[in-house]
Amino acid sequence: MPRPRVVVAGAGFGGLWAARGLAGADCDVVLLDRNNYHTFFPLLYQVAAAELAPPDIAYPVRSIFRRAANVEVHMARVTGLELENRRLLTSLGPVSYDVLVLALGSESHYFGVPGAEQHAFPLRWMHDAIPLRHHILTRFELAAASEDPLLRRRFLTFAVVGGGPTGVEFSGALAELIYGPLLRDFPAIDRDEVSVVLLEAADGVLGGMPDHLGAYALERLRRRRTKVRLGVRVEEVLHGSVRLRGGETISTDTVVWTAGVRGDPGIAGWGLPLAPGGRIRVDEHLRAEGHPEVYVVGDLAWSEHGGGPLPQVAQVAIQGGRSVARNLRRTLRGQPTEPFRYRDLGMLAVIGRNAAVAHVFGRAFRGIVAWILWLGIHVTWLIGFRNRALVLVNWAWNYVFFRRAVRLILPAARVAPDDIDPTPSGDGGR
Amino acid sequence: MPRPRVVVAGAGFGGLWAARGLAGADCDVVLLDRNNYHTFFPLLYQVAAAELAPPDIAYPVRSIFRRAANVEVHMARVTGLELENRRLLTSLGPVSYDVLVLALGSESHYFGVPGAEQHAFPLRWMHDAIPLRHHILTRFELAAASEDPLLRRRFLTFAVVGGGPTGVEFSGALAELIYGPLLRDFPAIDRDEVSVVLLEAADGVLGGMPDHLGAYALERLRRRRTKVRLGVRVEEVLHGSVRLRGGETISTDTVVWTAGVRGDPGIAGWGLPLAPGGRIRVDEHLRAEGHPEVYVVGDLAWSEHGGGPLPQVAQVAIQGGRSVARNLRRTLRGQPTEPFRYRDLGMLAVIGRNAAVAHVFGRAFRGIVAWILWLGIHVTWLIGFRNRALVLVNWAWNYVFFRRAVRLILPAARVAPDDIDPTPSGDGGR
Repeated sequence: MPRPRVVVAGAGFGGLWAARGLAGADCDVVLLDRNNYHTFFPLLYQVAAAELAPPDIAYPVRSIFRRAANVEVHMARVTGLELENRRLLTSLGPVSYDVLVLALGSESHYFGVPGAEQHAFPLRWMHDAIPLRHHILTRFELAAASEDPLLRRRFLTFAVVGGGPTGVEFSGALAELIYGPLLRDFPAIDRDEVSVVLLEAADGVLGGMPDHLGAYALERLRRRRTKVRLGVRVEEVLHGSVRLRGGETISTDTVVWTAGVRGDPGIAGWGLPLAPGGRIRVDEHLRAEGHPEVYVVGDLAWSEHGGGPLPQVAQVAIQGGRSVARNLRRTLRGQPTEPFRYRDLGMLAVIGRNAAVAHVFGRAFRGIVAWILWLGIHVTWLIGFRNRALVLVNWAWNYVFFRRAVRLILPAARVAPDDIDPTPSGDGGR
Repeated sequence: MPRPRVVVAGAGFGGLWAARGLAGADCDVVLLDRNNYHTFFPLLYQVAAAELAPPDIAYPVRSIFRRAANVEVHMARVTGLELENRRLLTSLGPVSYDVLVLALGSESHYFGVPGAEQHAFPLRWMHDAIPLRHHILTRFELAAASEDPLLRRRFLTFAVVGGGPTGVEFSGALAELIYGPLLRDFPAIDRDEVSVVLLEAADGVLGGMPDHLGAYALERLRRRRTKVRLGVRVEEVLHGSVRLRGGETISTDTVVWTAGVRGDPGIAGWGLPLAPGGRIRVDEHLRAEGHPEVYVVGDLAWSEHGGGPLPQVAQVAIQGGRSVARNLRRTLRGQPTEPFRYRDLGMLAVIGRNAAVAHVFGRAFRGIVAWILWLGIHVTWLIGFRNRALVLVNWAWNYVFFRRAVRLILPAARVAPDDIDPTPSGDGGR
């Protein structure tokens, strides 16, 4: 029997862990991603808030698999799927597979709010975080150069939609950036001209956590000058403002959308069984229903086995990727497979330096204890796939002590993922 | 008498040192730059060669002047000059001055070679270096995905035009990147498929240095697998190739142009006295001839006082900026000014780790001694305006030990300097 060819589409947590689990196995693995790096998503908001530089949370995928002779890595966009021919269509041409692992993640979901897709900033990928950081820093430059108080107010108001972990962490980090180094750099701007506003439809933040932790986060955010507005719904995002239900309008250039995610709508036409939120319905082995040769892991997978649908969080993706790799190895050895069981390890959110909330090991932590826990877990994690204690020092250093140099408004680079096509051009990179 | 208003246009070496010299003086200083950061140009080639990340060689201008109450910093593009009205035209509107310090630097000069401006990559600014890095890394991705040997060869041939310090340092660093970490990341690419070619019209590299240092650099480059071609002239740069005099054509996607610089051609219409190379003719006090209220420093200034024209190097810009600040302070105190005297501190070029050439203090150094000298001078330098020994540790760390994470092909950011206009837009940053 020839060695089976496993194609893994996506090098996020799910795809990366599936491919790692198959390194050295008796199969050929092709790992595709539209970027040449893996993004450590839980810290992405810190790039947007100019606390970390992109290299601190991204790692070249090829380097991770340098010693894995059976894993081939390519930078390619996935454009379609031919289920009958077992071919994945990509920007590098069709790629044949015996087994496919779909780990394409999710994108922002705007729930049909008018103007949100055009005017709000998502925060899902590195290519969301960098422009957002540049946009925020540029608003301060524009405000400092303007003498119109209404215009300055609009430049200096930052609205974050969604009080889940990403919204809470990003607004906390943004307040820390602004009321710390940014206002020191802009003496012409008064602290009362600046607003960070967190908009949440429910009556508390961090919905998935115990109530008292949500209340603690709320109190900490407010103490750090973030205006948390509960029970408000965004009706429309406009050019230069956001309109709430009831008619109130907030004048702002910057609406950051963290309120929800869904699968890429393009996937709907591929012939796989769809579930709510643009996700793909999988069986208890994470195989697409009716297509046992197609595994789906991470945010894209919809599994109802063992209670409600799995949450779209990093741990589900990682455990899913590992489970798929384990089951494929078992199949190669002729052993029976084991169904996927998600083990909930808990939830953490950081409001700022020295302040966090954690619900892990079945216990609740808050304040500096939770913050140190958070730091420890993330640092351990980053070492895991960097394998270099020294990189860790660098990362911790940059994070714990503010690193100023990340406050650069860097130039546009035209080399986007879309530039990866086989027609070379001498000026393609400018 | 009201405090005079000194406008400094450009925060490169010349403008930055002029503004630093005026901090605390009895005048108001407005410092403008199209970026919000100062670029440490001598290490820019290392960003292009993925040895350093942009934050390692860029520093926010506002932070440098945080404690200087009389210096105002703005991010703005210069678009014109009204000499009679004493107004500088910028993307933020007109800015009035009593004294103007023009420090706008230079841009690549293609000497009329057809196709060079369209197809070659310049290496003058951060917004040249980042796309070039992405382009190079993307060529490796494309080569690894192709099975056509001619196409692979074209992807993997990198031509550098110009054997001056920038060309020598960049080709050395590029060879180091490729034959070190890149080939380890791309096991499907053979080292014999890759070429780094340095094209120089003269019969040696590093023309301004003593002959034996040039010969040493040449030997080191060749030992590091760089193909140095002497006595060749580029006749045309095409899409996918470069044509040399005599008819020879090199198939390549990547032509890096380091062969010359000139002043921005737009300046020609401003009414200032022009000199060869698009520069502005200045008197011995670095004042534009016929316009004593306009100083010109750095690459843009053409002074014949004290021998031939001043070279377009960092030291001339720094010393010029300092001289202008000193003379303005003297004028404010009613003292006579002193003519500018350039003190040549020497020249350094690095071929790679442990190998450099230096001609300083009237003496010639080469090999590891020159490299340590080079490292020491640059490190001292960077501390100079960062004022944090710890940043130095970070920088030295990243440089001396390869940092892998800079090999990211990062996404496009649409927030370019051109985006700085007073019309805000919620989606302007995507």
